[in-house]
Amino acid sequence: MSTVWTSRYAQRTKNLKSSAIRELLKITQKPEVISFAGGLPAPEVFPTERFREACIKVLNTQGSQALQYGATEGYEPLREMIARHTARYGVKAKSENVLITSGSQQALDLIAKLLINPGDRILVEAPTYLGALQAFNVFGAEYICVPSDDDGLQTERLEESLRLGPKFMYVLPNFQNPGGTTLAEGRRHELVLLAERYGIPIIEDDPYGQLRYEGDHLTPLITLDRQNISGDDGYSTGNVLYLSTFSKTLSPGLRLGWIVAPPEVIAKLVQIKQGADLHTSTFTQMVAHEVARDNFLDEHIKLIRKVYGERRDVMLNALEEYFPPEVSWTRPQGGLFLWVTLPEGVDAHRLFEAALKENVAFVAGDSFYAGNGYAAESRRHFRLNFSNAQPDQIREGVRRLSVAIKSQMAGLQPEAVR
Amino acid sequence: MSTVWTSRYAQRTKNLKSSAIRELLKITQKPEVISFAGGLPAPEVFPTERFREACIKVLNTQGSQALQYGATEGYEPLREMIARHTARYGVKAKSENVLITSGSQQALDLIAKLLINPGDRILVEAPTYLGALQAFNVFGAEYICVPSDDDGLQTERLEESLRLGPKFMYVLPNFQNPGGTTLAEGRRHELVLLAERYGIPIIEDDPYGQLRYEGDHLTPLITLDRQNISGDDGYSTGNVLYLSTFSKTLSPGLRLGWIVAPPEVIAKLVQIKQGADLHTSTFTQMVAHEVARDNFLDEHIKLIRKVYGERRDVMLNALEEYFPPEVSWTRPQGGLFLWVTLPEGVDAHRLFEAALKENVAFVAGDSFYAGNGYAAESRRHFRLNFSNAQPDQIREGVRRLSVAIKSQMAGLQPEAVR
Repeated sequence: MSTVWTSRYAQRTKNLKSSAIRELLKITQKPEVISFAGGLPAPEVFPTERFREACIKVLNTQGSQALQYGATEGYEPLREMIARHTARYGVKAKSENVLITSGSQQALDLIAKLLINPGDRILVEAPTYLGALQAFNVFGAEYICVPSDDDGLQTERLEESLRLGPKFMYVLPNFQNPGGTTLAEGRRHELVLLAERYGIPIIEDDPYGQLRYEGDHLTPLITLDRQNISGDDGYSTGNVLYLSTFSKTLSPGLRLGWIVAPPEVIAKLVQIKQGADLHTSTFTQMVAHEVARDNFLDEHIKLIRKVYGERRDVMLNALEEYFPPEVSWTRPQGGLFLWVTLPEGVDAHRLFEAALKENVAFVAGDSFYAGNGYAAESRRHFRLNFSNAQPDQIREGVRRLSVAIKSQMAGLQPEAVR
Repeated sequence: MSTVWTSRYAQRTKNLKSSAIRELLKITQKPEVISFAGGLPAPEVFPTERFREACIKVLNTQGSQALQYGATEGYEPLREMIARHTARYGVKAKSENVLITSGSQQALDLIAKLLINPGDRILVEAPTYLGALQAFNVFGAEYICVPSDDDGLQTERLEESLRLGPKFMYVLPNFQNPGGTTLAEGRRHELVLLAERYGIPIIEDDPYGQLRYEGDHLTPLITLDRQNISGDDGYSTGNVLYLSTFSKTLSPGLRLGWIVAPPEVIAKLVQIKQGADLHTSTFTQMVAHEVARDNFLDEHIKLIRKVYGERRDVMLNALEEYFPPEVSWTRPQGGLFLWVTLPEGVDAHRLFEAALKENVAFVAGDSFYAGNGYAAESRRHFRLNFSNAQPDQIREGVRRLSVAIKSQMAGLQPEAVR
């Protein structure tokens, strides 16, 4: 129904779409559906008991502070903890370099508000995280897409794109969403050097970096950035903004993320955050700090790695067992997702309909591409999540999915032959 | 220090300023300063024990849900509770009419994103809530200001402003921040009718409505709005978006606010909120619901009314006792603030410097005015908060403030005589 409001919506909202994934989540919540669609952590690994203890301690000893307004920058001990953690990677971050955000989705929104004028071109991977596209779109972003392969963004194809003068580059180097791929070490050096040469800043989004199930941790871009000038108060300049979150290691229900940046950028983001939500919940920040402290987070991440690593293996084995040889997929070293490529002629959207009839769900690939250059390509892909379903459900879901794929391929044969 | 980022900030950030109040809070946190500057609730009334019980219950019985991602719209039982509460005012709201926001500051940000094109004029009171100006400014808002008096916005001066075609009208009818004034019943009817006649929608911001210390509750604008068409699923059209929050009744540290609106507007705001922060903390929503339920919130509000009502009386009595007769102030029937008018020639900023030397703080009036039309007027005012300091501190603070005022007035006399 049209109301007095309809005619008054701002220009920027005209092309807004709801996230395909969040809409999907509603369909796929039926208990008979095995969903590989979301990016949900396994509830079995939530440290609920530790959370309960933390809530009691925070409310007993610091209740007046926890329930009161707080600083826009964030709860100081939490900022310090995050700075110490970042410093492990060789970046001399101090709390002055850290802004606590309401989930890392808010980090993307604040950065978009800070940097994007309507029409600005943002360099992104193809495919890339759709939540970033949602955050950037509303500020009128346009896109320059650089394709990825199994080693992440193809840096040999980066220079021509950098010459087009993007406002910034947005990359997910570790276990990328949706691709599951990791940017190779050599490419990391190349990317940072090229960005420096062309003067293009980098947004490094790293929600999954801690969740590595095999191989060695690779150097973050922010560590490779030679623009960082460090002093006793943290680092004061830099070409990379680094984003991460507690959503995949402690709990997404807290909505706690952060940005690591030079203090000048933090100060500007603080002004923007004041107008956006004043500050992130004091209570959840203090509880998260209490939960994570005394090395608990590091220990807990070991558990998550074990559980998710097993689920990844179960999914990879099931794919090998059930899927036809014409279908291929990435083999992620960490994170929550892998990325499937269908044989030519099989359409991920039609497959989705067939899969739902088999009570299994995924996200079709086209949600993850910016701009229109990938319309045909995008429909040959879909994303599978392996963190949320239990191992037996993963096997059964992949089996159901293989039935749907085979039905689609069977439908295809006569036309291919004709 | 200038960095690669400085030259890349978007146009909208050029005139961003940090909130004077949030900056002030840093200065005034020294223990020797009695601060009337913030708008902080009294920590003595936080229901900490009830919060602890609620956290334990939520984590024991619904931990997996509380720590997981949730719906962008908000936690359904909380939406229903808020709808029921709103329905008390005669608005047939259902959960479909409610969006949970990360504090009501986020409600302002989402509404600004939804409605404001650069250059759009927004009709606001003079003075008005500075957080709203911060949220609107970043989207390029311009302003049409309508002055207030002891009965709130002067509706007899409204029509000429409505003819200028504002995008919407932003008003705080109850115990306005900063004025402390309440929009009189007759003016409410007049305002809603005029808005309807000129087709101008209304944003009704009501963070303090529950905190009335004397007199009768007045009808909200959303209730007077004859555009509301109600059915079994809630109301489907309407000219008023209604905003409120738990920040002043339960705890601002949770960051929980809400918007009541027709479902079509809620749907659009949900798309915007997805890009802004995905959703508000599931955990804090479930805890707030658990704290508020079984009539606790209503009972708790009675306690807050008693405590803040006493503090208001202590401040009014102290002002009467200590302040020179040339100074006047509003007598709020509720809320957290009152508004002081200085004699001509006394400047609120110079007074602020003098007051800080006496170890007492307030917020000078100019922060609360949109545009430049009130430069001289604004410097004759300042805002006092009476909720956060304890009664003996309120008396002592007002005494110190009177010393500063008298020193300023004494400095003034010779010139006035000359």
